[in-house]
Amino acid sequence: MNNFVFQNPTKLIFGKGEIKRLSKLIDKDKKILMTYGGGSIKRNGVYEQVMQALEGYDIVEFSGIEANPDYSTLMKAVDICKTQNIDFILAVGGGSIIDGTKFIATAAKFEGEDAWDILRKKAKNLPIPIDFATVLTLPATASEMNNGGVISRRDRCEKFSFHNPAGFPKFSILDPTVVLSLPEKQISNGIVDIYAHTLEQYLTTCLDTKVMDRWAEGLLLTLIEEAPKLLKPNPSYESCANFMLTATMGLNGFISMGVDEDWATHMIGHELTALCGLDHGETLAIVHPGVMSVMRKEKHGKLLQYARRVWNITIENEEQAIDEAIERTENFFRSIGKKTRLSEYGIGNDVIDTIVQRFTDRGWAVGEHGIVTPEKTRLILEKVL
Amino acid sequence: MNNFVFQNPTKLIFGKGEIKRLSKLIDKDKKILMTYGGGSIKRNGVYEQVMQALEGYDIVEFSGIEANPDYSTLMKAVDICKTQNIDFILAVGGGSIIDGTKFIATAAKFEGEDAWDILRKKAKNLPIPIDFATVLTLPATASEMNNGGVISRRDRCEKFSFHNPAGFPKFSILDPTVVLSLPEKQISNGIVDIYAHTLEQYLTTCLDTKVMDRWAEGLLLTLIEEAPKLLKPNPSYESCANFMLTATMGLNGFISMGVDEDWATHMIGHELTALCGLDHGETLAIVHPGVMSVMRKEKHGKLLQYARRVWNITIENEEQAIDEAIERTENFFRSIGKKTRLSEYGIGNDVIDTIVQRFTDRGWAVGEHGIVTPEKTRLILEKVL
Repeated sequence: MNNFVFQNPTKLIFGKGEIKRLSKLIDKDKKILMTYGGGSIKRNGVYEQVMQALEGYDIVEFSGIEANPDYSTLMKAVDICKTQNIDFILAVGGGSIIDGTKFIATAAKFEGEDAWDILRKKAKNLPIPIDFATVLTLPATASEMNNGGVISRRDRCEKFSFHNPAGFPKFSILDPTVVLSLPEKQISNGIVDIYAHTLEQYLTTCLDTKVMDRWAEGLLLTLIEEAPKLLKPNPSYESCANFMLTATMGLNGFISMGVDEDWATHMIGHELTALCGLDHGETLAIVHPGVMSVMRKEKHGKLLQYARRVWNITIENEEQAIDEAIERTENFFRSIGKKTRLSEYGIGNDVIDTIVQRFTDRGWAVGEHGIVTPEKTRLILEKVL
Repeated sequence: MNNFVFQNPTKLIFGKGEIKRLSKLIDKDKKILMTYGGGSIKRNGVYEQVMQALEGYDIVEFSGIEANPDYSTLMKAVDICKTQNIDFILAVGGGSIIDGTKFIATAAKFEGEDAWDILRKKAKNLPIPIDFATVLTLPATASEMNNGGVISRRDRCEKFSFHNPAGFPKFSILDPTVVLSLPEKQISNGIVDIYAHTLEQYLTTCLDTKVMDRWAEGLLLTLIEEAPKLLKPNPSYESCANFMLTATMGLNGFISMGVDEDWATHMIGHELTALCGLDHGETLAIVHPGVMSVMRKEKHGKLLQYARRVWNITIENEEQAIDEAIERTENFFRSIGKKTRLSEYGIGNDVIDTIVQRFTDRGWAVGEHGIVTPEKTRLILEKVL
């Protein structure tokens, strides 16, 4: 087990009807910026619940944050924070809204010349952000309980992540009933995202991290069990709640203590979103089976454990068991409606060349201990062509 | 799944050699009270590591906190805090030292007339305690990452718990190498304590809490796997690290989200400590199999799941499978050197009568939803006579 430091101060408020607690969680004298997306919260009733709970507060609304939130959009909100003395931001939405809000909250206090440096140059010594909190409407990214975000800049076809050590939400309200209003595609994207987050922290080096291994497997088993139920009409409250909890637990640090982490699938996937516009979840469903196949020697021990414990594969031959586990993973993604090959989206060798060139130019060897070199990235993408 | 609120702000610093970080974690201008026990930290080198790391700090030492920390001892430290303007307390020890320190930190700021009210009357509106942190030397109670404590008052043969919502350690340093210096009895007590904590949050109502169920099972499976290795001479660093992590994760709120909790075994066990002087872990090894047997109808679903998933029992008949699981639990405790019957300690019906009378006088029905009435408590204790 590696040495590690863990801390996660976010207060989680989970369950049906909990949005009404908002007024007990935010001081009455705060000037609130409420951030949200394209208006789905007005259709599913969440907007109204939030507004009722915050009656009497001074609220400025900022809507229109897009999926894969864009730098140019977010900088408009940064201006509002500065000019209107905003001292609390409430994100109402999914991972994109929350990631965007984290960036707004940090950038509004950032003293460097160019706020893009927070992402492109991974600026150190980020400021303490404006206090912010979330009402989650889409289980997937765990942004509601971590300090990271991913921001896009469409004018440069770039997509980068950042972490602000002081940038955890003060609280997050998770009401599983919001899942009932989600379109099938968002649910399946969420499932793939959570599954991939978990694999990124699990399918790495064998370090005898028994608790974390079991906990990661617990999330994967829960997703496999709940996925078919979630994609039928009107899933039960319990299925929605289990789904929502796997999302938050998948990337809040609870399963990453003392383990090596991978993240190659995400890094490669971000490029596919930036260059080709695929949804984040769509990119992961393609790339992850490719990473498993190409990196199977380096990941042998964990792949075998994954085969045995998650897929209950008893085939004695280890390589065959791993083949079967990779195939079942791809089939799982397909079973929830995801394509798993680049060619199904019309993506070909030119995009692969661009990604490999970008990784080479940036000097990026990704994955645990940098084992996924640009050349391995090429093999991975060719494998899932 | 029940609605729930979760928050745990403690910073965890885990791994070999991490005690040296202390000076980066405590401000130089703090006046520190360092609390510890009977001196084992001087024999195992932890005292020296702490003193080296804190060279130049203004430190007042308070030693002699006993196992099952006593009110009269702790009140002496409360006096020191008040008269010497202590503004940081560093607990160096196991659960008793840390529980005692939590009480000291809270009682020093408590404005009520009698600090025992914090425990006996479960006083509400507890004050923000003096900042405190821990260097853990004995994995067991998870006190290093929660806001609760258990304090004894020997002059009244009483033992009560308390929780201060603001009473989490600021940080806890967990160096698994300390396990190597522990006597076998403390290790086995720790294993039983962690196992019991986990069962208290797991063997309750079936609420389709899939993630928490898997995580609790993960802790139990890890303990079953590591226990025999830990009780051999010179266990590996990995075994010590896994043991230490199960302890902290067993009672820091991470496995209690949305589940019903029991705690009957602990409540009954506390009486056995208060009345007969048994170690905490010794009481749990006796009482838990009794609770499982007597409450088997109410706990049927979870007991069966426990049999199938933790003990891998495939016997088709459900009652037989549960019998087998209870027997294996008792055998597990015996395999690590614990007695599992009251009579083995010379405890008889008079003590049972006293405990039942106390529970009746206090109006205590314990367990999830109060299902363990005083009469059930009698049956449980008679079962393990």
